Amino acid sequence: GERRAKAERMFGLMDGFLKSDPISLQKDILNHVEYTVARSRFSFDDFEAYQGLSHSVRDRLIERWHDTQLYFKRKDPKRVYFLSLEYLMGRSLSNSVINLGIRDEYAEALSQLGFEFEVLAEQEGDAALGNGGLARLSACQMDSLATLDYPAWGYGLRYQYGLFRQLILDGFQHEQPDYWLNFGNPWEIERIHVTYPVKFYGTVEEELLNGKKCKVWIPGEMVEAVAYDNPIPGYGTRNTITLRLWAAKPSDQYDMESYNTGDYINAVVNRQKAETISSVLYPDDRSHQGKELRLKQQYFFVSASIQDIIRRFKDAHNNFDEFQEKVALQLNDTHPSLAISEVMRVLVDEENLDWSRAWGIVCKIFSFTTHTVLAEGLEKIPVDLLGSLLPRHLEIIYDINFNFVEELKKRIGMDYNRLSRMSIVEDGAVKSIRSANLSIVCSHTVNGVSRVHFELLKTKLFKDFYELWPEKFQYKTNGVTQRRWIVVSNPSLCGLISKWLGTEAWIRNVDLLTGLREYAANADLQQEWKMVRKVNKMRLAEYIEAMSGLKVSLDAMFDVQIKRIHEYKRQLLNILGIIHRYDCIKSMNESDRRKVVPRVCIIGGKAAPGYEIAKKIIKLCHAVAEKINNDSDVGDLLKLVFIPDYNVSVAELVIPGADLSQHISTAGHEASGTGCMKFLMNGSLLLATADGSTVEIIEEIGAENLFLFGAKVDEVPMLREKGTDMRVNLQFARVVRMIRDGYFGFQDYFESLCDTVDGGSDFYLLGSDFGSYLEAQAAADKAFVDQEKWTRMSILSTAGSGRFSSDRTIQDYAENTWGIERCRCPF
Amino acid sequence: GERRAKAERMFGLMDGFLKSDPISLQKDILNHVEYTVARSRFSFDDFEAYQGLSHSVRDRLIERWHDTQLYFKRKDPKRVYFLSLEYLMGRSLSNSVINLGIRDEYAEALSQLGFEFEVLAEQEGDAALGNGGLARLSACQMDSLATLDYPAWGYGLRYQYGLFRQLILDGFQHEQPDYWLNFGNPWEIERIHVTYPVKFYGTVEEELLNGKKCKVWIPGEMVEAVAYDNPIPGYGTRNTITLRLWAAKPSDQYDMESYNTGDYINAVVNRQKAETISSVLYPDDRSHQGKELRLKQQYFFVSASIQDIIRRFKDAHNNFDEFQEKVALQLNDTHPSLAISEVMRVLVDEENLDWSRAWGIVCKIFSFTTHTVLAEGLEKIPVDLLGSLLPRHLEIIYDINFNFVEELKKRIGMDYNRLSRMSIVEDGAVKSIRSANLSIVCSHTVNGVSRVHFELLKTKLFKDFYELWPEKFQYKTNGVTQRRWIVVSNPSLCGLISKWLGTEAWIRNVDLLTGLREYAANADLQQEWKMVRKVNKMRLAEYIEAMSGLKVSLDAMFDVQIKRIHEYKRQLLNILGIIHRYDCIKSMNESDRRKVVPRVCIIGGKAAPGYEIAKKIIKLCHAVAEKINNDSDVGDLLKLVFIPDYNVSVAELVIPGADLSQHISTAGHEASGTGCMKFLMNGSLLLATADGSTVEIIEEIGAENLFLFGAKVDEVPMLREKGTDMRVNLQFARVVRMIRDGYFGFQDYFESLCDTVDGGSDFYLLGSDFGSYLEAQAAADKAFVDQEKWTRMSILSTAGSGRFSSDRTIQDYAENTWGIERCRCPF
Ligand SMILES: Cc1ncc(COP(=O)(O)O)c(C=O)c1O
Ligand SMILES: Cc1ncc(COP(=O)(O)O)c(C=O)c1O
Repeated sequence: GERRAKAERMFGLMDGFLKSDPISLQKDILNHVEYTVARSRFSFDDFEAYQGLSHSVRDRLIERWHDTQLYFKRKDPKRVYFLSLEYLMGRSLSNSVINLGIRDEYAEALSQLGFEFEVLAEQEGDAALGNGGLARLSACQMDSLATLDYPAWGYGLRYQYGLFRQLILDGFQHEQPDYWLNFGNPWEIERIHVTYPVKFYGTVEEELLNGKKCKVWIPGEMVEAVAYDNPIPGYGTRNTITLRLWAAKPSDQYDMESYNTGDYINAVVNRQKAETISSVLYPDDRSHQGKELRLKQQYFFVSASIQDIIRRFKDAHNNFDEFQEKVALQLNDTHPSLAISEVMRVLVDEENLDWSRAWGIVCKIFSFTTHTVLAEGLEKIPVDLLGSLLPRHLEIIYDINFNFVEELKKRIGMDYNRLSRMSIVEDGAVKSIRSANLSIVCSHTVNGVSRVHFELLKTKLFKDFYELWPEKFQYKTNGVTQRRWIVVSNPSLCGLISKWLGTEAWIRNVDLLTGLREYAANADLQQEWKMVRKVNKMRLAEYIEAMSGLKVSLDAMFDVQIKRIHEYKRQLLNILGIIHRYDCIKSMNESDRRKVVPRVCIIGGKAAPGYEIAKKIIKLCHAVAEKINNDSDVGDLLKLVFIPDYNVSVAELVIPGADLSQHISTAGHEASGTGCMKFLMNGSLLLATADGSTVEIIEEIGAENLFLFGAKVDEVPMLREKGTDMRVNLQFARVVRMIRDGYFGFQDYFESLCDTVDGGSDFYLLGSDFGSYLEAQAAADKAFVDQEKWTRMSILSTAGSGRFSSDRTIQDYAENTWGIERCRCPF
Repeated sequence: GERRAKAERMFGLMDGFLKSDPISLQKDILNHVEYTVARSRFSFDDFEAYQGLSHSVRDRLIERWHDTQLYFKRKDPKRVYFLSLEYLMGRSLSNSVINLGIRDEYAEALSQLGFEFEVLAEQEGDAALGNGGLARLSACQMDSLATLDYPAWGYGLRYQYGLFRQLILDGFQHEQPDYWLNFGNPWEIERIHVTYPVKFYGTVEEELLNGKKCKVWIPGEMVEAVAYDNPIPGYGTRNTITLRLWAAKPSDQYDMESYNTGDYINAVVNRQKAETISSVLYPDDRSHQGKELRLKQQYFFVSASIQDIIRRFKDAHNNFDEFQEKVALQLNDTHPSLAISEVMRVLVDEENLDWSRAWGIVCKIFSFTTHTVLAEGLEKIPVDLLGSLLPRHLEIIYDINFNFVEELKKRIGMDYNRLSRMSIVEDGAVKSIRSANLSIVCSHTVNGVSRVHFELLKTKLFKDFYELWPEKFQYKTNGVTQRRWIVVSNPSLCGLISKWLGTEAWIRNVDLLTGLREYAANADLQQEWKMVRKVNKMRLAEYIEAMSGLKVSLDAMFDVQIKRIHEYKRQLLNILGIIHRYDCIKSMNESDRRKVVPRVCIIGGKAAPGYEIAKKIIKLCHAVAEKINNDSDVGDLLKLVFIPDYNVSVAELVIPGADLSQHISTAGHEASGTGCMKFLMNGSLLLATADGSTVEIIEEIGAENLFLFGAKVDEVPMLREKGTDMRVNLQFARVVRMIRDGYFGFQDYFESLCDTVDGGSDFYLLGSDFGSYLEAQAAADKAFVDQEKWTRMSILSTAGSGRFSSDRTIQDYAENTWGIERCRCPF
């Protein structure tokens, strides 16, 4: 009665959804400037305008997000929970308004107020809660999950400090903490009431419950996990899903003992340390094994997420009978693999299910994707550390392993070597848990990230497991979202594509891009295509000039390698090639020089703070650039630029401006690579080894449309074995000698860098690939001279990039791994 | 041209000010629920409704705050900057809507939506950024500064953990950290761009600048101070002033050196420690001398505030000629006294003024109010600590002292005792800076907080200085704001007063309260007055029952003592009196008992975490309550209740329900006391010693209208000297013996407590005042029986409370100390 009347009153007060005509948008922006940002609406700067603008977008996101969540709740479909410790979201503003379909309305509204949308969008800082490929992949997949209407949740950590900012001083990398929340974050919704306790340390005791022996974990420390929801809008749909990130807060539940003032202050300051659990992203995905804080982060993340997932399930179900029909849990690499033991623990210890019933459930809900190539890269957790931090989990993992090994013995007999290789527990100097083995044993599906990677898994990395359970193994070649990587970051190309395809439908259905093939040689398209590319190169050239003062020629080939600095990615090979080119130019006469294709070589990427060799590569790049760029013999024929602080928004700017891009990892070292896909989509030609996803790219666009070189995956071991026996490429020896001789200065400093490729120690085979690398570069030069041919290759690159959309990846996961169905929220 | 057109467009989009009719309020509340809190507008709970509500109030505050700040900027009047390390603001919602004049509109709007204003207001947590009297005084004075239209700024620290929460377990106090920002704080505006670097440690070097020797401080550590503005609305005016609180954030300006992954993580985690500077309020205002963190807090606060103040001045002025005409700096106790050396440092080292010119300015801008009574309570900073944390400041203080002592020698000659007493530097086991001496030397005015206090300053604490500079010394008796302490917390009394005075003008002009005197004996007023008091007692009784399960009789006299637990405040005297009363009742026969005036004794207050004796007093109170409340011989004749977690909102509930209140400090120990004023305003009768402001209360309402007892200020030293010689009050000896004998249990635990009052060690004179205390209590009983007389006394208390409004205090400060004038923002 009365309650009803009041509800109707509230309904009556609601004007329906927020309007998106320019006047409404303007009012909303100004109101946010005045009331949310608390600035006067008559005097505010670009940043404050950005804040007002983004809050008005947030309001519109919230409407759809609410409706989607309600709809999912009502429909109760099977949901996928994507567990990842890293997300590299980058900026949200442009992406949001484009996915919401109100980009132009906003641009119009702002221009009437005297602001430019692009300028305000530049005010946003990157959300850089991840290191590189794996993290950006998570972000692309979230976009696809939302766009394809899948009932999905992303879970992650809300680091207060994202990936360090790279500062270059005198050519050396310095790391600056990225306190990215400094200026507020309108894209998240703090859910102060969505909190869970997370426990650590303590002991396990045995208790009798109804005559049944139970294990009870008496924790020694407790912190609170608080949810921050980041709405992820789909494109061309009302669906807006949730990326839920957890932050650590001191727990209120424990009383604090303190008997004098000094103790009280210390006690409070100590509690505050709880917050440091989620405070900082580890800056490298490999070298932090055995660090307690890292393990704490992993469990903190897993525990909060699993509590939340089980709570949501129990809200709608009275028992666990349907759990596996309603829940799919995706492990993004092994980082969240403690989720397996956590689900077992909750089901057995807290929900009082039998071990075997719980085990049956666990085996049906987990799927696992590995991004690793080498056995050395697999994560291990020292047993001592795990036993102290999570005593009950260690017990559970031991029990899982016991059952598994018993079973295995029945299947394969007493092959102790194989048993010990496959055991979840590794005996050795440091007894450890092998997270990958745990993940494989407990998952129904194990995925690789490209076909090459899949072959490696079957034949090397997980050979034993593949032979045991071939049906578990699949692969889904990675993909990237064309929404961010074309529509957001390359609007001119986006317009051109839609124009020639006669539709925007490719933005949701990327296979349509192949339609461009038939116009690849069309002179009109070629003309327009070149114009678009020129505009993007101009934007990049302006950025380079603003950043470094260096003026570069737009007629030069823009040759880009941007990605994390790593020996296996071989930025050094690139630099050595540049030195070679420089050396050649120096020794040419005037008329020969006139035939040289001018190049602007662009390198960018961060080195892990503890990775000395990678840092030396950065310094070498700067030293070589210093020499070349100031040599008047060279002029516009060759320039070398290092773009500092590579991140998503830098990528959005650089990729559309690249003529050529390099993906030159030693074959067998790149699991997939996603950078190459972004370049491909944007019509950059690839200069690449046959590694990771490149192999599949070749299939799509044909080997004649890119510049391939170097040893193949199966040649690498043999070449390594030969080692010192090989005759060294003379040109290679010469350029290394130039560095060693101090031609670029810093002679002593570069010595150890040269040692990594010189003589017998050239693990990544720079020397043996150098010859074919130079040939590929020459081929690229040759192709570039023929602009008609180059442009055709460029169009065909874009036209063939459809298979590398994360939409395809996600659909494959949904159908073949997770078993989920679309759930589209009605308008 | 174009810019103009765009500005006009923005103006056009502005609908004028936010409307406050019920429909507009409802829409605003629901919009905030949906978009700010991100809940569905169809399902939200009381807390979320509170959030939506308070955000809608915030919007309205922001409008006025903007206008006020713009107006001040335009008028550029002399401004007062109130520097205080503590503010006890309590809740903001009710206070804000009342001062904005839209309380009833909100209540109406909410009730149509099915919510009750009072219930939502209860959802708000206290902002408890202070310990007790001093901190609540700052809050009251901010309200008066806003209401009286003074151009004032409050500056303070934004502690993440306010005053600890008091939890009582088995009668013992436990401290819980007060992580008050957990659920967001709509009353503050984060000013992310208002930041200043604050420096610590390092060295001082000498440099030559234009042939002049300069000192340059090379700091060793740097953190960032970020401003959080809390708008403080005045009542009956558009003026809304700023309380600016500083929070510490890691500084971005320094590069971080780290050479391997482990170092990087540690480096980031260490930076985070910067935040701990402002993270926790020291829970006691006395015992943390010589703590580095405390000194860091003080300087952090001072440095950020002074930078902000000088920046504001320089925005409008090209040189410092007018500084003293535009800036008044008020030091609330010595906690911010580093501001003196900081202003000197900035003027001399950074603005390059001559020392003598800078000194001339400093001497004209600072005023200092002391809240201290005893020399032992004065703050000292060890020279070693200061020299390491703030090396340049130590030098400056030494220079100030050198000049001062030279000057002093000329005035008083070589009286070494006096010189060493007055020196800013104290030589002793630990060489220290005397903050009070520094503050007196550098301030143009030194204020006490009551007449009694002033006398103490002149004759004891600052005798030497008073004799040197009698013209510097003044006093302003403290006051409290009738807005919060009647209008907000006692709405029924507020209505009654306005009805009988025929106006609400007393809310801004409190002297009008004296108009009630003529109706003190009016039977109608008395009747209504009693009704109001009954309603308030009922509310308090309900609270007591909800909290403790204890049912109390409304016919009983509610006898309240709430304030920090301290030996000098003598809660123990109160408890001993209650034991005595209990003892008497036990020994009475039925018919005698029928003559006993029933009492509900209510005690509340926090003990500093390190203050053992105070904690024992709390435990004793619970032990005695346990005994009495469960004794069926006693029944309703006597109840004892301890109200846990005393804070501003508990005070707002308890004070209106008190018949009698106790302010029974040993004479000469309470500088002023403000609790008594709140009770007085609310018509509670006082049972008090002649201490602090009570002396002036007696003048206002006449000694016949309260219950005075105990030794006078000038009798105390003599009584202390006599000490053990005195004949002990027999009743006193008996009740102490009961505790010692274990009558209330915990015999061993209470022994040291009894020792503080037993035999020769009764420093606070409980024994010698006990007799007259019991007499005063008997007089109160007698008066209570005559309800007509009691009610008259009660009315006269309220009628005489006008002088104890902080409006009077602030006006006095403005005219006689700061020299500022009103600056009223037009509507
Ligand atoms: C910021 C950033 N880092 C790393 C990557 C991964 O690059 P790659 O796959 O070339 O290593 C990408 C794009 O894929 C990126 O945008
Ligand atoms: C929460 C709180 N603490 C302390 C005080 C100071 O009380 P008193 O002056 O009685 O010590 C007051 C009121 O004045 C208060 O509201």
